[in-house]
Formats: sequence, C-alpha cells, structure tokens
Amino acid sequence: MNVSGWMIEEFFRNTFATGFKVKAHLHSEKSTFQQIDVFDTEAVGRLLLLDGKTMVSDKDEFVYHEVVSHIPYMVSRSCKKVLIIGGGDGGVVREFVKHTDIERIDLVEIDERVIEVSKIYFPDCTSGLSDPRVRVLPEDGFAFIKRAKAEYDIIVVDSTDPVDFASGLFTDEFYSDVYAALTEDGIMMNQTENPFLDEFGVKNIYGNMRKVFPIVQSFTAPMLIYPGVFWTFGFSSKKYRPTDLNPAKLGRMNSLERSLKWYNTKWHQGAFALSNFHKHMIGQE
Amino acid sequence: MNVSGWMIEEFFRNTFATGFKVKAHLHSEKSTFQQIDVFDTEAVGRLLLLDGKTMVSDKDEFVYHEVVSHIPYMVSRSCKKVLIIGGGDGGVVREFVKHTDIERIDLVEIDERVIEVSKIYFPDCTSGLSDPRVRVLPEDGFAFIKRAKAEYDIIVVDSTDPVDFASGLFTDEFYSDVYAALTEDGIMMNQTENPFLDEFGVKNIYGNMRKVFPIVQSFTAPMLIYPGVFWTFGFSSKKYRPTDLNPAKLGRMNSLERSLKWYNTKWHQGAFALSNFHKHMIGQE
Repeated sequence: MNVSGWMIEEFFRNTFATGFKVKAHLHSEKSTFQQIDVFDTEAVGRLLLLDGKTMVSDKDEFVYHEVVSHIPYMVSRSCKKVLIIGGGDGGVVREFVKHTDIERIDLVEIDERVIEVSKIYFPDCTSGLSDPRVRVLPEDGFAFIKRAKAEYDIIVVDSTDPVDFASGLFTDEFYSDVYAALTEDGIMMNQTENPFLDEFGVKNIYGNMRKVFPIVQSFTAPMLIYPGVFWTFGFSSKKYRPTDLNPAKLGRMNSLERSLKWYNTKWHQGAFALSNFHKHMIGQE
Repeated sequence: MNVSGWMIEEFFRNTFATGFKVKAHLHSEKSTFQQIDVFDTEAVGRLLLLDGKTMVSDKDEFVYHEVVSHIPYMVSRSCKKVLIIGGGDGGVVREFVKHTDIERIDLVEIDERVIEVSKIYFPDCTSGLSDPRVRVLPEDGFAFIKRAKAEYDIIVVDSTDPVDFASGLFTDEFYSDVYAALTEDGIMMNQTENPFLDEFGVKNIYGNMRKVFPIVQSFTAPMLIYPGVFWTFGFSSKKYRPTDLNPAKLGRMNSLERSLKWYNTKWHQGAFALSNFHKHMIGQE
C-alpha cells in the first residue's frame, strides 16, 4: 500500500498495516546487507527501518532496550562479560553500561552502516558505544558465536524478524552455539515476535529454545512501532529462573531504577506471570 | 486516508494509523446515536466499528471482556449485582454469567441497535444476554446511574473514547455517581486509553477517579484492534486493593480459569506491578 506522506508497514501476510505520517525522509541507503531508511514522523519522532521494517523510534526505544538488559542483569550472579548480537543502534549497550560491575560488552553487528547511521540520527541510543568497556565488532554473529566458549554471562540476540539472513538466529543450532558461549549460569535474551500475528512462528521459536536451555520463560512489553505492539521476549537460562533476582544487586538497582523509563524490579517479577493466551502461544501449560 | 480494500483508522491527531484488509463490508447503518459498521477482515475476523472507531473483533475480544469482569469479581467479597454501562456487544455480560453466585446483571446500553447488530454478527459475545439474571436496559447511562444508590457490587464502564457523547463517562461528576451507586465495598472498572498516544487524557482520567475513590490502580492488557494496542484499564475501589483476592473464590476460579483464554489469578496479581512509564502516565509514583 502506497499513500503519499505516510510510511506504511504491512504485515501478517499483508492483511494488517501500521502507518506513520512522515515529516521528512531523512536517510536512505542500500548497504551491503539491507536497505536502511530513517524517517522523521509526527507520532514517534525519528524512525529507523531496515528492509522496510520498523526497528527503532525515539518514542518507544527505551522499552525494548531496558527490558532486554536489566532483566538478565538482575538475575545474573556475576556479570562480567556481555555479548549483544545485532543491535547496531546501540540502545542495548547504553543500558548495560549503567552497571559498573560489567567489565566488557561486545557488540557484534554484521552491518557497520546501521551503527554509523544510528550515530547520526539516534545519538542517545549510541551514546554508550564510546564507553571504554565496549568493543564494537563488525562481524557475522553466526561465525562469532561459534568461536566463543563459556565466555559470556549474558547474551542478547537483538535481531530482526525470522526471515532472510536473520532467520538463522531462531534455530536450535544457533541456540546451541549461544549455550556453549555462555558461562555455567549464563542467560540468553531475545525478541520472540507477536503471538497474535505469528502463532506458528512463536511456538517454533520457544520449541527450539527448549531443545537447548533447561529454563525457558517469556514476558511481554509493548513496542509501539512493531507489528501489533504486543511483543514477547524470551528468557533462556542455564541455572536461575527469571524471577529469582540477585539479592546483592537490589540495593543499587533501587537507586538506578528511579532514572529508568520502563524497568523496575516489581514490574520485572510481575511480567513473568503470563496470561493463558501467552502461555498457550509459547507452549507453556 | 482512503485505500481501496482496506479499513483504516487514523488516530493520535491523524499521525498514526492502523489498517485492516477487508473481505466484505457486512453492515452499515446510522442509528439515532452513531454510525455502526461491521467488516469481515483477513486479520481479525469480524470487526465492529462505531463512528469509524474499532470496538470489537473476533480475534481479540476475549482479552477486554475477561479482564474487566474477572478482575473485579475475584476481588469482590459478596457479588450479587453487577452493572455494565455501554458494552452493547454483550461480551462483558458473557463473562459475568460464568459466576453462579451473581444474582443480577444489568446492561445499560443507550443504543439498542448496537445490541441487535451484535446479535447478528457476534453471536458468541451476545450469548450471555439470554441468561435469566440479565436485564438489558436501553437507557442513557448518565441518567440511570444518578438513580442507583448503594446497589451494585461491581460497575463496569464499557465505553468508547472520551469524545462526543461518551466524554461525560470520564468526568469526576460521573465517577461520583458511580461511587454512590456502588455498595460499601464496591468496585468500578473502566477502560482508560493508551498512554503512549494520549498522555494528557490518561492523566486527566486517573486524576478524576482519584478525586472520588480512595483506591485507584491500573493495569494493562493488549487490545490488538485499538490504537497502539497497549491498553490501560482502571480499577477504582472503596475498600479492597486489586491484588487482595477473595480467598473464598480461589478454588472455583482455579477450575474456571482453565476454560478462559486470557485471565488467570497469577496474571491478575502480576498485572498490577506497573512499569515506570505506566506509573508516571497515571500519576502514581
């Protein structure tokens, strides 16, 4: 569907659509890997698209970036090394650098152009990339993860949808590589799509995670710019359950969470009490 | 925006839009009160619109109808009489009739045509209306509520958005009338919009409820067909907090909730642990 003055994303087999009124088309390029666009919109401010799919907006980026970082951080016991696969906008890194006990954050983003475009248009998101603990590695996540062994306490798979070159990030083979790259009580976080719109896909993702991890749970947080907004995230863990917060971290989080826009530990614990619909969709009865 | 073959709703000052691909326009009429349309859509099945605003769809109606009924029911101690203002589609009634201890359910819907159209196109929603405990009253909710005194244990305000004739359902004057119509430990439930899209409106609604009720809390549940999906609901109560479930009801709910599509008591209790964003938007710090 093409409507002058609007950026419209169709999804769910092109039966459902979301539109954003456009003030300006700020950027358009074809990188080696994908089409990159940035729009300035009335409703959500600046909006990054990869291959026509909404990725990041000024208005709601804090939700995604806070939940995939602070949830695993608060469950982890020792958290020295973090790996982010994808996430070239830098938003997840910005959240992890708030924790002073983390020693190293590796960002493996296959497309350097996403990082460079984000530095121009989303400077708040990329503000953490200059932290001395951060390494930005312009590499293929699949190859990188196969080399890493028992190294990371947390791995965040900050991917696009399970189509084209990102589809491999939702397979049990990939999850096995992530498992091997994690320390003995490591945690994987990933975005796991909208079950209202992709029931089969969501069930498949959770099935694959359960083939590899002994603890697989899920929660939801709204992503206003994503198809159907009701977004699910996976928490896959070797040892600790997602509501088993590290008591040693509660004091510091108590003061940090006053400056966060979404996350707090009470919400964290409530978020894993799922509706019947959500449990059914991820095959958790 | 007009696109052939699509039903598109614009909102947030016409800067954001949601579109549904249409298979058939099943019904269109202008009642005394509003324009009533029913579409058959690819993505969400049958879809009811009032004055061009999405109200009910086959795909997600269970979410709204279960949460506004079972939450207050599980908190209430004695629940003999329930009042629903609006809600001519019947979905809220269908949920309340599942509780055998409720003696009377009054549905006050100003527009009889909404009820009649729903009976044709949403027969599952209206299935509860034939229950002998249900009275369907085609009246103005504002006038009705002024006459009721200390009569209802639960009042659900199942309204459209705070514009035009429904705007009065979001004022402190109306909430005072609801308060007077409730029994001494009564509970009011209402839909309170999407704070991503109407920050000022949401703050105003919660401010008005707090002028009247000693306990005002909020939760969220996704409404796929509503603008921006992330929907908030208000729980306003004279005596009991929303997480203070009636222990006498837990046993029966335990078996009932196996047949519900969304609600369960663990989700109920987790849903009131709010994100910082949600707390900020409703003025709860």
